[in-house]
Amino acid sequence: MSEPGLRFEVVARDGRARLGRLSLPRGSIDTPAFMPVGTYGTVKAMTPEELERLGAQIVLGNTFHLMLRPGVETIARHAGALHGFMGWQRPILTDSGGFQVFSLATLRRIEEEGVSFRSPVDGAPVRLRPEDAMDVQRGLCSDIAMAFDDCTAYPVPHSVARESMQRSMRWALRSYDHYYRDEPPGHLFAIVQGGMYQDLRLESLELLAQRPFAGYAIGGLAVGEPEEARVAVLESLAEHLPPERAHYLMGVGYPHDIVEAVERGVDLFDCVMPTRHARNGHLFTAQGSLNIRNAAYQDDTGPIDPSCSCSTCQHYSRAYLRHLDRCGEILGVRLATLHNLHFYLDLMRRIREAIRDGRFGELAARIRAQPRRFEAPVA
Amino acid sequence: MSEPGLRFEVVARDGRARLGRLSLPRGSIDTPAFMPVGTYGTVKAMTPEELERLGAQIVLGNTFHLMLRPGVETIARHAGALHGFMGWQRPILTDSGGFQVFSLATLRRIEEEGVSFRSPVDGAPVRLRPEDAMDVQRGLCSDIAMAFDDCTAYPVPHSVARESMQRSMRWALRSYDHYYRDEPPGHLFAIVQGGMYQDLRLESLELLAQRPFAGYAIGGLAVGEPEEARVAVLESLAEHLPPERAHYLMGVGYPHDIVEAVERGVDLFDCVMPTRHARNGHLFTAQGSLNIRNAAYQDDTGPIDPSCSCSTCQHYSRAYLRHLDRCGEILGVRLATLHNLHFYLDLMRRIREAIRDGRFGELAARIRAQPRRFEAPVA
Repeated sequence: MSEPGLRFEVVARDGRARLGRLSLPRGSIDTPAFMPVGTYGTVKAMTPEELERLGAQIVLGNTFHLMLRPGVETIARHAGALHGFMGWQRPILTDSGGFQVFSLATLRRIEEEGVSFRSPVDGAPVRLRPEDAMDVQRGLCSDIAMAFDDCTAYPVPHSVARESMQRSMRWALRSYDHYYRDEPPGHLFAIVQGGMYQDLRLESLELLAQRPFAGYAIGGLAVGEPEEARVAVLESLAEHLPPERAHYLMGVGYPHDIVEAVERGVDLFDCVMPTRHARNGHLFTAQGSLNIRNAAYQDDTGPIDPSCSCSTCQHYSRAYLRHLDRCGEILGVRLATLHNLHFYLDLMRRIREAIRDGRFGELAARIRAQPRRFEAPVA
Repeated sequence: MSEPGLRFEVVARDGRARLGRLSLPRGSIDTPAFMPVGTYGTVKAMTPEELERLGAQIVLGNTFHLMLRPGVETIARHAGALHGFMGWQRPILTDSGGFQVFSLATLRRIEEEGVSFRSPVDGAPVRLRPEDAMDVQRGLCSDIAMAFDDCTAYPVPHSVARESMQRSMRWALRSYDHYYRDEPPGHLFAIVQGGMYQDLRLESLELLAQRPFAGYAIGGLAVGEPEEARVAVLESLAEHLPPERAHYLMGVGYPHDIVEAVERGVDLFDCVMPTRHARNGHLFTAQGSLNIRNAAYQDDTGPIDPSCSCSTCQHYSRAYLRHLDRCGEILGVRLATLHNLHFYLDLMRRIREAIRDGRFGELAARIRAQPRRFEAPVA
């Protein structure tokens, strides 16, 4: 699929898993791809240079957080807007703020026109309509913008999920019409909603077909539902998402979650998991994961993962990383974040190679068999 | 001056200012030199690779902090000890822990044998004698170790300063005899004490002449005394420090403090100023200094210092740095630390060039004329 400035091609298929390439003026993204999360205009603890060296081809920015701090006006003063502000010249995807408003819980009021809430930064009243969310994303000059949506809670009755989804779809059309009204700086993706109800998910898709969105995201997952419910939604959508468009699963997840989604035709992912876990001492390895705070690592002169090629594993011991963590040293967060991001970006590389070579099923089985949750090994 | 493994040569003089080179098996240090402080085995927020790119030729490690966390045993398990632990292959100087014990104030007890104190980490009782401080520094495998000293408080009467200094000198001799007892991993510097009393400073120097220390540090300054008192001590020592040895002023200071000391024959400096100030938003520039937290920088798209060649100033705006600081983002500390360290290391480069070209007086006058304290500009 292509429109001026954006082109998405599926290069190879292995079952329903797709190897693809999303091309934008600022660079191309090999899919399935993982987008590191740069909430406040920085992927926490990393420089853009480090992200490039890790092989990141696109990062995510949070519209909600950036509009409150420092404000879109400040960012727009920089050449290239968010690109210039944060020194990242490759593509940026911005979310619409819908999910963050949803997370505010009691502080928000949702109406047909949009949402009203108190800024968690300074308590000031803020109104965010689909049109505002588009103006902010246009101001940020992100390469991919997201429609403004009402993220449905979990669990809710069918009637509530339906009302929320239909509102999201009306907002999606308003988002589209406002975003594309004149020389948009990027491309707008739709967000499919409908909670865990498969009929609503399909109705959502049908309603979105009223506009030629540049890509399709699956929203409203990773909100506390069991894994089976999430996989069921992906399964029900797999055959219905427009095959010529990129498919983006928002906010997911662990390596095995990513594998389940790739198997059902998802191309793009974002998640705070690698960066947030790094700050909590949780480190991903090929043999599962470990918590560097465990006393067992006090005198461990080996690397986090002997099979890992990242610069943290090349230069530093578990004992050193544990020491830095205990002392609250910034370098500890840096080295752990770099390792975890390398793990995720390397996972995506391995997934792409497996699809290309027709052995994705085999890789998926291996990743499914790995320990799923973080458990500290016995000291 | 040279002893096996260490060589110090004065290459040029401009007045009493000296351009020199301190050569060690792990690398050479062009003097006057600034040593970034790596308290816990990390120069806060920086990687060794970044420090090398900034031109740092030696860093300082804190014996006191490292012996409490993670403990010298853990570090000694790594090939190259502290070098391997922190991934820094160039020279390391370790202090002796004397100054940190001094800073503990009421928690310590000083006796002829050594000091006893409660660990600020876990409250455990710790005894630190000159011999222990040498064992720890030998275990860390630092290239330059410091004699264990009793840092004299300020202000104190002559009699108190004398007693403290004489104890320090007895400890210095014990330090020497224990450090060099068999295959020392590096070289031991003496520390001249004596408070603000010039006669005691000279007596201290005379007492130290009983052993052939590899270098001479001036301790007991930067403890709250006025600048004039500090300069007077430096002035009184300038003609008496062994000219063939390196002279190291501990824990000092602002750029103009460094210039006053270089003018009086000092070759080595260390200070937490650039790194600590960076974490508080204080940034050094050729036009004085600024605090990035000032609201005046909210929309300032210019670099910290237009005349600065560091990578922070090449890529990021004041507005971005202020934003990162407000959001408590690690990247903000990284970029600020990198800039301030670049400023200090560049200052030393400029000082060395000025001595070489016989225009140190001119440079010193310019630096003296710069604003001395941090003052936020009017918003």
